[in-house]
Amino acid sequence: NGVSPVVLEARDRVGGRTFTARNKETKWVDLGGAYVGPTQNRILRLAKQYGVKTYKVNEQERLLHYVDGKSSTFKASFPPSWNPLVHLDFNNLFRTFDEMGKEIPREAPWKAPHAEEWDKMSMQQLIEKICWTSATRRFATLFINVNVTSEPHEVSALWFLWYIKQAGGIMRIFSTTNGGQERKFVGGSGQISECMARELGDRVKLQSPVCRIDQSGDMVLVETTDKQTYMAKQVILATPPVLNLKIHFNPELPPLRNQLINRVPMGSVIKCMVYYKENFWRKKGLCGSMVIEDEGAPIGLTLDDTKPDGSMPAIMGFKRICESFSRVLGTEEALHAIHYEEKNWCEEEYSGGCYTAYFPPGILTQFGKVLREPVGRLYFAGTETATEWSGYMEGAVQAGERAAREILCTMGKIHRSQIWQTEPESEDVPARPFVTTFWERNLPSVGGLVKFVAVSGFLSVATVAGVAAYKKGLIPRC
Amino acid sequence: NGVSPVVLEARDRVGGRTFTARNKETKWVDLGGAYVGPTQNRILRLAKQYGVKTYKVNEQERLLHYVDGKSSTFKASFPPSWNPLVHLDFNNLFRTFDEMGKEIPREAPWKAPHAEEWDKMSMQQLIEKICWTSATRRFATLFINVNVTSEPHEVSALWFLWYIKQAGGIMRIFSTTNGGQERKFVGGSGQISECMARELGDRVKLQSPVCRIDQSGDMVLVETTDKQTYMAKQVILATPPVLNLKIHFNPELPPLRNQLINRVPMGSVIKCMVYYKENFWRKKGLCGSMVIEDEGAPIGLTLDDTKPDGSMPAIMGFKRICESFSRVLGTEEALHAIHYEEKNWCEEEYSGGCYTAYFPPGILTQFGKVLREPVGRLYFAGTETATEWSGYMEGAVQAGERAAREILCTMGKIHRSQIWQTEPESEDVPARPFVTTFWERNLPSVGGLVKFVAVSGFLSVATVAGVAAYKKGLIPRC
Repeated sequence: NGVSPVVLEARDRVGGRTFTARNKETKWVDLGGAYVGPTQNRILRLAKQYGVKTYKVNEQERLLHYVDGKSSTFKASFPPSWNPLVHLDFNNLFRTFDEMGKEIPREAPWKAPHAEEWDKMSMQQLIEKICWTSATRRFATLFINVNVTSEPHEVSALWFLWYIKQAGGIMRIFSTTNGGQERKFVGGSGQISECMARELGDRVKLQSPVCRIDQSGDMVLVETTDKQTYMAKQVILATPPVLNLKIHFNPELPPLRNQLINRVPMGSVIKCMVYYKENFWRKKGLCGSMVIEDEGAPIGLTLDDTKPDGSMPAIMGFKRICESFSRVLGTEEALHAIHYEEKNWCEEEYSGGCYTAYFPPGILTQFGKVLREPVGRLYFAGTETATEWSGYMEGAVQAGERAAREILCTMGKIHRSQIWQTEPESEDVPARPFVTTFWERNLPSVGGLVKFVAVSGFLSVATVAGVAAYKKGLIPRC
Repeated sequence: NGVSPVVLEARDRVGGRTFTARNKETKWVDLGGAYVGPTQNRILRLAKQYGVKTYKVNEQERLLHYVDGKSSTFKASFPPSWNPLVHLDFNNLFRTFDEMGKEIPREAPWKAPHAEEWDKMSMQQLIEKICWTSATRRFATLFINVNVTSEPHEVSALWFLWYIKQAGGIMRIFSTTNGGQERKFVGGSGQISECMARELGDRVKLQSPVCRIDQSGDMVLVETTDKQTYMAKQVILATPPVLNLKIHFNPELPPLRNQLINRVPMGSVIKCMVYYKENFWRKKGLCGSMVIEDEGAPIGLTLDDTKPDGSMPAIMGFKRICESFSRVLGTEEALHAIHYEEKNWCEEEYSGGCYTAYFPPGILTQFGKVLREPVGRLYFAGTETATEWSGYMEGAVQAGERAAREILCTMGKIHRSQIWQTEPESEDVPARPFVTTFWERNLPSVGGLVKFVAVSGFLSVATVAGVAAYKKGLIPRC
């Protein structure tokens, strides 16, 4: 488009919250953002453009569900329950999440009809309101831990329901097959940023943390900690919102943005990979996906991380910090790892945490509307500003392209209406709809069942009493 | 002590969240921290040392309570209620806050016996749990708004209860007479920092925002945005925790601190002062203190801000941002202001908000313990790290002196046991105990009353039934 950008990168590498490490023990390993799936069409398009291929995460064999100290296997996106009350409760909870999500506009969750009410509530409060069984409450906690690397009492219900919705709903976000974890990139997700950086050549300045932005002159002045100064007509900040605080602004940011950026912390997660000599779980008929419900366990969800050609057998898990390590999952072989990789994202100054920013109760409705509102000649990208798959690589691409087009629009190169664009579906990774069964849609909640039983019980008693009274002649036969 | 400190101040003035403006309309006016009272002995000692005197905030006449569109006057720290149920409920709520506070160690609230449970709860949840009447719930909301410039659903119950406790309890924190708002400094609170700065001379570098701290060498290297470099043996960071993010660290901060600083936002407040030709409220028998309970009102609490000699009649109020302006308080004269001052602390890049940082649910127990834990040669001060009157000027002095002594201890100049010191009571501003009445201590809660009525009702019915049965001969007389 005839513009000449410069990319100032704080780290000594590109990629940010994606990071592909290479070594002989692993060949390559994604220590940050890795997964990609159907409906994430922008990142798939970008990858294809650079010749980066995807492969399916192994889910051929059965999944494992560890709960109450016992393991059982299953074959579905969610572990089933054999207790009929838990089944009703579980079905109702996740159905309710999706139904509430339907009310929430993806581009403006603060405009939802119940925005204020839901934003004042934490997810813990919402779960307590909806759930009848402790099994469902416990699984809901795991679901929140795994999806947004934070605790139910830390996050706003409005924000979390929005997050699930803008990722396509409960099934899309949590599933491996046909969902957000369906695939990984052959050779690692880091290649995409690396390819872009190669294309940009020396326009990418590594080890250049920005510490000052001065908009008071004709050109925007950007200074880095190594005392380099850059002049630009416009600037895109593509950091998590909180990391805007790393920069000293002149003039100061407007009050609402200044407040927003100190109210949206990053999640806490350590990503870890354990490597084995053999892929012993597949031999036992297990695919490597484990849903682990156990207070003491540091990991809630695992996936197979073996290479697509079957080499480098490995299990990947997300570890929440501040939790103590304890038991693992049963077989002797699991104790004999040959290699271990981990990345603690909490210590990264230039991420602040991972995967993404979360909104505590009350923040989205009060401050959300300035999330991507330009400030003078500053524009805001970063996955947190996306409206589809925010929190994911897909959201980062949507946000970056949108911010670039905002600037093209300011320069008169494109029309205002072209800023937001939809993306055609990837041919290689098409999305299939999730079909809900009649029972999933229509089974009562536990509360509904209790009412039904109470009312029908009352009616039965009334009927029996009526019939008895009639028979005994207490009601006159006309 | 033979050390040679340098003070790097980001702004073009010293004082931080205190700020005394001077102009002919006001003589002087405290646009930031202003109030001081008994038990705040450190700031009183420091003020006295510099010859800065205090005066009492006017509370001679009656206070005003505006609720349900009606004004009534009263004479006490808290507005009374004439509805006996509200009275019980109110009494029980604040008694409970103080009782819960007793369990919370001021230096380590995360060690309270119920720390985890209370930290997972927002104050809104706690209020809903304790309160029976909407009048009490509404006043509790105002109480939180006024004390910590945030909303009940935004703050952790554990943190708020700790905050009240470490300020000396409900009565001490909220009262004007004998409480946190008893006095102001003649000439403004800003004088204290100004006097200290004068004493330090050119050791105070204004307009020197720190953007980089490098601990990798023999000396700590501190860089400012104007490209000055300072070398030091030790460094004290005396900013709100979140503003540590303005600095690029080498090596990076440890994970827990890196996470803490993006989880403790600053409150939102605009302080405003309205000036009148005449002190019309005193003529009407009102002192100028108003407790305003009204959804639409932007201000919850006001105090007289007239100068000690009676000049410059004014009313001070704290305005929560994001709320719409509306009605005022009744008399024609109140519409005829002659001057107005306000300070929106939300827009201040180098405060991030005011008065102080708040802890959303879940943060204090997970990350609180690193609040003032040194990182290499970095030490942490700032009112947020205090254990008495944190959030106040007093807390800032306690924290600054403690951090200075931590360094003296490292240098071998004082013993470890001397780091934390108690402060003798100010002779000029002694604290009187708050005497609770027998009824305040022993009145039942509404819940207690309901149980009492139910049980005694049941007993009465049972007794009557028993007597009746006895009389009718249904119970055999032995």
